[in-house]
Parts: sequence; C-alpha cells; structure tokens
Amino acid sequence: MQFKDHTIEEIDSIMNKAWKAFPIYRNTSLDDRASFMKAIAVELENAGDELIHTAMQETNLPEARLRGERGRTIFQLNSYADACLQGNWLAATIDTAIPEKTPPKPDIRKMQVPLGPVVVFGSSNFPFAYSTAGGDTASALAAGCPVIVKAHPAHPHTSTLVANAILTAATKCKMPDGVFAHIYGTSFEIGKALVMHPYTKAVGFTGSFTGGKQLFDWSNQRKEPIPVFAEMGSVNPVFLLPDKLTTDCAQIALMYAGSITLGAGQFCTNPGLIIGIESAALQKFIHDLGKAIQQIAASKMLHNGIIKAYKEKKAAALLQEDVHLVAESSSAVDSLEALPTIATTTANAFLQNPLLHQEVFGPFSLVIRCQDMAQMVEVAQKMEGQLTATIMTSNAEFSKNPELVEAIQNICGRFILNSVPTGVEVCLSMQHGGPYPASTDSRFGSVGADGIGRFCRPLAFQNWHNDLLPAALKDENPLKLWRRVNNEPSKN
Amino acid sequence: MQFKDHTIEEIDSIMNKAWKAFPIYRNTSLDDRASFMKAIAVELENAGDELIHTAMQETNLPEARLRGERGRTIFQLNSYADACLQGNWLAATIDTAIPEKTPPKPDIRKMQVPLGPVVVFGSSNFPFAYSTAGGDTASALAAGCPVIVKAHPAHPHTSTLVANAILTAATKCKMPDGVFAHIYGTSFEIGKALVMHPYTKAVGFTGSFTGGKQLFDWSNQRKEPIPVFAEMGSVNPVFLLPDKLTTDCAQIALMYAGSITLGAGQFCTNPGLIIGIESAALQKFIHDLGKAIQQIAASKMLHNGIIKAYKEKKAAALLQEDVHLVAESSSAVDSLEALPTIATTTANAFLQNPLLHQEVFGPFSLVIRCQDMAQMVEVAQKMEGQLTATIMTSNAEFSKNPELVEAIQNICGRFILNSVPTGVEVCLSMQHGGPYPASTDSRFGSVGADGIGRFCRPLAFQNWHNDLLPAALKDENPLKLWRRVNNEPSKN
Repeated sequence: MQFKDHTIEEIDSIMNKAWKAFPIYRNTSLDDRASFMKAIAVELENAGDELIHTAMQETNLPEARLRGERGRTIFQLNSYADACLQGNWLAATIDTAIPEKTPPKPDIRKMQVPLGPVVVFGSSNFPFAYSTAGGDTASALAAGCPVIVKAHPAHPHTSTLVANAILTAATKCKMPDGVFAHIYGTSFEIGKALVMHPYTKAVGFTGSFTGGKQLFDWSNQRKEPIPVFAEMGSVNPVFLLPDKLTTDCAQIALMYAGSITLGAGQFCTNPGLIIGIESAALQKFIHDLGKAIQQIAASKMLHNGIIKAYKEKKAAALLQEDVHLVAESSSAVDSLEALPTIATTTANAFLQNPLLHQEVFGPFSLVIRCQDMAQMVEVAQKMEGQLTATIMTSNAEFSKNPELVEAIQNICGRFILNSVPTGVEVCLSMQHGGPYPASTDSRFGSVGADGIGRFCRPLAFQNWHNDLLPAALKDENPLKLWRRVNNEPSKN
Repeated sequence: MQFKDHTIEEIDSIMNKAWKAFPIYRNTSLDDRASFMKAIAVELENAGDELIHTAMQETNLPEARLRGERGRTIFQLNSYADACLQGNWLAATIDTAIPEKTPPKPDIRKMQVPLGPVVVFGSSNFPFAYSTAGGDTASALAAGCPVIVKAHPAHPHTSTLVANAILTAATKCKMPDGVFAHIYGTSFEIGKALVMHPYTKAVGFTGSFTGGKQLFDWSNQRKEPIPVFAEMGSVNPVFLLPDKLTTDCAQIALMYAGSITLGAGQFCTNPGLIIGIESAALQKFIHDLGKAIQQIAASKMLHNGIIKAYKEKKAAALLQEDVHLVAESSSAVDSLEALPTIATTTANAFLQNPLLHQEVFGPFSLVIRCQDMAQMVEVAQKMEGQLTATIMTSNAEFSKNPELVEAIQNICGRFILNSVPTGVEVCLSMQHGGPYPASTDSRFGSVGADGIGRFCRPLAFQNWHNDLLPAALKDENPLKLWRRVNNEPSKN
C-alpha cells in the first residue's frame, strides 16, 4: 500500500466538510457522543492482531507493549466518554436574576462550548495512545469538535487501520460526514496548510520542540490566531537529597536504571537529568547506576531517524567540556538498537552550557554533581519548563529546603516524590504539560479528562427563556449535572 | 505633578523585585490574600473625593458615573477576595492510590498554582474598574501573582492615587515588597520592555485591537512565550427578528437609543451594528431610532485622541458606498462632545466592505438591512469574533431559525436575548471575552471570579506524603474546599 500526500485542494475540501459537520456534531447529545467514543474503542479491539502486527512492523515496539498501549487507548476513549457524559467539563454555571438590585441583575448562565474543527498531529513513540485515536482525538470528540488527524509518517499503515476503526464507528453511530478525517502528508506544506486553514480552530501536537514550535508560530501568523497545544517533551530532572541518597542509594540506582531504559528511553517523561550533591553517597550512586545500566540490553528504537538523532545528541553531549561517560550498555547487534548510557558532569559545567539542558531522546541520563544545596537550588532555578520533576527525599530534609521545593515547583507540571517520572496515569488529577518549552500552554494538559477543556470556550447566555436554553443550563437540570448555582456546587 | 517615563533599567529592577516577591506572595494563605484585597477596597474608599475629582478632570466622565464605577471596583475586589478564599478556583483534585492495580496507581493530586508576575495595561474608558486596581489586578492578586501596572497615559494622576491605595494596603497587610508596582510610560519601548521581560509571566490588557495585538505579537516573539489576555472590544451585533420587531418596534428603538449613547458610547459592549430584514417594521424602527437619537444630547468623550478617532471613523463609515446617515444628534457645544449618530446600509454593502465590520468607538450604530433570513444568517456567519451578540426575538421565531442561532453562538462570548449588551454584571457566570479579535484568548474572560484562572496553571503532586502537601490537597481538607475526589465533588 502506498500513501500519497494529500493535495492542498483536498485538504481544503476536507476542512470544508469538517466545518459543515461541526454544527451537527456539536449539537449531538452527550449520550450520543459518548456512545461514538465507546464504539471507537470497540472497533480498535476489533482491529485485532492485524493492528498489533502492523504497529510492530512500523515501530519496532514489542508485542506486549503494543497490546498494553492499545488497552490504554481503549481505556482513555472509554474514560473520556464517561467524563463527557458526566459533563463536569461543561462547567455549567448559573446566576439567577435579582430584579430588585440596582441596576437589576439579569439571569446569566455559562457553559463550555466546542471551538470547532481540531487538527491532531500524533507522536511516533505512542502509535496508539498519543496518535490517531489518542488522547487529543478523544478529548476533541468529547468536546464536540470534528477531528482531522495527520497520519504520522513513521506509522501510516497503523494510522490508517486506526482511522478506519474511527470511520467505521462514525458510520455505525450515524455521526455526520466529516466528523473525522485522516490525512497523509510528509511535506512541510501539508502541516502548514492544516494549521493555517481558516476552519481549523485548534491544534493538538505531541512531538519534538522544533515541530511544536513551528505549528505554534504558524498559528500566531494566522489572521485569527488559534490555540496550539503542543507537548514537546522535556528532560524531567530528578533531585537527589543527601539523606535519602545515603539511606537508599542502591535501591534508587536500580529504580532509575529501569526508568531510564524503559521503552528504549522513548518516553517524554524519561528522566534525562539526575542532580545530586558531591558526596561519597553520590559517588556510590553513580557507580551503582552505571553498573545497573551496563547490564540492561540495548533495545530497538522506533525508526532510523530516531536512532540517528539519539547517537548524534548523545555524542554531542559527551564531547562537552567536563562531561564524562560513566557507563554504556554492551554493544548493539542491530543498527536500530540504542545503547543505554550514563554520563556525569559538574553543576558549573551544566550552568554554563545550554546544550546540556537539551533532551537526548532515548536511554541516556546525565548526572549533575553540585557543590552544595545552594548550587542545587541554582540548577533548579536555571532550568527551562519541564513536564515533570522528581525529588528523592526524606520528610525531614524536604522541610529543611523550601527554596529548592519552590524552585522545582516553578519549572514543572507534575512534581513527583520518591518515585520515577515514567508512567503517566490517565486520571483527572494528572497534569501532562508544563511551563514552556515542555508545552506551549502550561494551563492545560494532554492526559486526563481535563484535557477536554483545551477544545472549548465559555459562552454566557443572558436573559434566556428556560425553554430556549441548552439542556445543560435549564432550570430542571435534565442532564443531572453538577453545576455552580449562585456560587455553590449543586445537582438540583 | 509630572510623570516621567521609567527607564529600562528601572523596569528591570522593578521586575526583579516582583520576582523576589513571588515565592513569598504565592505562599501567603488565602485568608491573607483576601484580606489584602479587601484592604485595597477600603483604601479606595479612603481615597475619597480627591480620587473622584481627579478622575473627573482626567476623563471627562461625570461624577455619578465615577462614584458608581468606584463602587463597582470595590465590589470586584471584595467579591474576588471572597472567591479567592472560597478556593473553587484552585480546582483541587484528588485521585487516591490503587496499589492493587496493574501497574499500581499512585496517589495523584492537582491544584492551580500562580504563573508569576503579571503586567497589567488598563483601559482609558474605565479608569477604576478596568484600570490600576481593576479586574485584571484583582484576579492576578487572588491567584497569588505580583502585579505590575503600567499607568494609562490618559489618567496618570488617577492611576497614581489608586496605586498609592494599593501600596498602602500592601504595607498595612505586611505583603512582601514588590507585590505591586506602578510604572509610567508613554513610549512604545516601555510596553515592549514590560512584555519582553523574562520575569513577566502573563499580561492583562483592555483597549484597542492595535494595542492588544502588538502585546500578543511581542509575547510570541519571546524565548518563552507567555499568555496575553487582551480584551480588544467589538461591534456587538444585534439581530432583530421580524415578529418581535413588529410587536415591539418603538420600545426596542428607545431601549437601543439609550444603549448606544450610554457613557458617550464608550463601552466595549456598545451595540455598533443592528441587523434587520427589509420590511415596513424595519423602516419604522430605523425612523424611531433616528428620532430618539436626535433627542439625546452630545456628551464629552474621554480625551482628544478618542473624539478625533470617533469623528474620523464615523466620517469614513459614512463615506462608504451605500451607507446613509439616518440621524445625528444636535450639534456639539464642546470640542470633546461626540454627536450620537445612526446610519444604515444594505447587507450586500456590509458583506463586501470589511471597513464596515470595524468598531467606531463612540455613540455610533449602523443598521444593516438584509433581504431575507438567509442573508441575515450569512451576515452572522461572516462576522469576526465578538464580546457579545444579541437577538431580539419571540420564542416561536427563535425556534424556527436554528441556523441563525448557531451562527451567532459561533461568534460571541455572551449571547443576550431581548435585552441590551451594555452592562457587564460581575458574577461567576459572566463571560467577558470572545472569539478573536474580540479577545486574544476566547477560553478566558476578564470579568467575574473565573478570570482568576487566567493567571494559574495546574500542578500535579504525585506520591506525596500528606504532611508535605499544600493545605488545599491534604487529606483532612483544612481549607474546607469543594474538591474533586476520585471523580466526584466533595467537601470531605
């Protein structure tokens, strides 16, 4: 099967269809929308072994991982469908009239309404969960927005099978023509045409900084700028506090050797920087971590472009002044295999060298040795925005270092205590997103049902007759929503 | 008293102070923050007649209006302080651990945290409510962000008195040095330096499209782009449906003559476009509206720049093909007085002429005559984003025209039924903001306590020990917040 790039004319016709589908789709009931999303989950399951085998061929990811990831994607679709139906994302708010006030206060009600067609650029490292039927697609569909997915060029067959599953579900659920579309494009121009199209009202993206920043810049050059939610990865620093390290050195080293090499390091939450304070315990930690890493076999990366970038960025990091290789796994047998690697440097070198702040996507981690706590605080303060930051600490030393805790809070979207950043739970309290450049909009995240909010805006209805109001705002609360009524949460 | 522009060096020093104040201020209790905001309200009252008289001199606004506006500003400060204390804006969310899950689900909790120092550019038309101690300042302070206000060059004395009130309250409440700063600047460079400063983390603005767009563009040119909440006004279209117009013609004309000329038309919600369908009723409406307008005396605008722009933009509109003057109020006696004016044109002319879509800031309104309902729908579809849109309709004809209702919903932030857009109630369900270019970010509004959310981002805490968690997220709920616990609202 060959994948021909869509033409600019075809994209225009697809966007016109999506625009026509929008008023129909936005007016579907929450019930119908949730059923559609659940039907997509069923079709993904129905896609059976063929889908798994196709993804294995295109991504080099192992079968168990891909079966697990499909399960996660199905869980996402079902749980966002449940959230869609529960309707808390509508943020329905009612202030009833106070005619005796001077001037009289009118009846005003507010709820979230969908923005319009959403263009989704999926990631290569999660061919299911952050791709064609991934979190962005599920969130946008829950919000009432038609979705246009540009297939990731690294897994077009997988993307096509998933797109077909979505289209089958759309037909079965009698969704309007144009509610979903799938586009092929390897050229720069296709992405640009999609972002610049006047009927595109928001963009979801998971991938590199270069890619996300480009979409963001295009969007801001539009006559009508639109929100771009680009999750662009990060180095996910881990701060090792001295007492904790002394107590649990070997255990932490083992835990992190696992986290660094999980999925060949191809996670946006991979811990790329580990920051400690010079001590015998830190020396021992570096030694233990290096030893553990050497024993972990190299594994295949997603595609040639990614292994090439890994090798180049790792080599560049190792060439920097004061950066030393600690350990590397035994040599690879396949040209796609990435060698897990640990290097170390001083905080002085790190603070002076912006290159060391950049992500090396893959199983690579750099241990930064600080002279003292003051320098550890400085390292935290000088870091760019991150998806996650982790602190390994005892309760006592945590409380003694408020300045460090403050600095870490400022740079991350998720703050982890005594654990690892890999593993992104799909739940309401998850925040997957962080201060720039981790993502383009730190006020939103791309995992968990709160991500639906990215594709909505509030609309207030003033002085409306109850019969004419949308169901979510009617006096009798037919959808049985939790609403804010005259400043208090209420289900009545 | 002379106002010298701050230098770039002074701005840098002020921003450094704000950055140092941030970790202290963000860690104040909700109680202390609310007390600070209420103390500002008290000091505004204490500023007494001097404040009113100074504002009268600088803005030409009448005394009663300014006393009313100060009252509104005090109400805003108090009500956002109450909202700050109530803490719903924290969106505290808890998902407890499920250790038996595969893989085990960790405990994750999420809440809103402040972004950092916020730069506020106030408006000239609301010297209190949307200026130095206005909604943006109150929202940012509630969120835990230090605020830097650039005084509006049209009312520097008024702004200084208000800034002094804020600084007095800060001292009395022992707030950290740098929690608030006041900057003078008439040059372009001052605004740019404020938006581009690395310690600025968000911008609030109320004013013209040109001004807001410039701030937005600067922000996107930063190494770290930041959110800009620019409320840039709109033409606030009013759609007259035939049955309603036939029934209530004279009454609607009278109501709108009042709304168009309220405050010399200097409201961002001023109705600048009125759209009807050709009929005897519409002819009568235009006649009645013109007659009513003629009887309304001209009143003074804010300053020379604004009256000049009003005269020029009105003249330009009247020069367009197919645009006809309907009525103008009797001639002005003062050079600052704006003549209330009604003009009319056809939908064909409107659809072909982008100039007629632009705001004429002041007491001017253009009546657009459509051939039929299809053309009215087309007019709605072709409009840019608006703060408000209004429909004058009977229930029966509303229900018969879903396409029009759909088109209007798509272009506005607040949708009003059988009333006027002027008058912006301060409450939770208000949405003051709309699709671009009404504002730069339609997902947020600048009136009502939900505006606090503009200056926050979610931060997730994973695997934290209860003792170390922020109060808002502790098991025992010491702040007695409404929280989302395992997907359900709860106060326990």
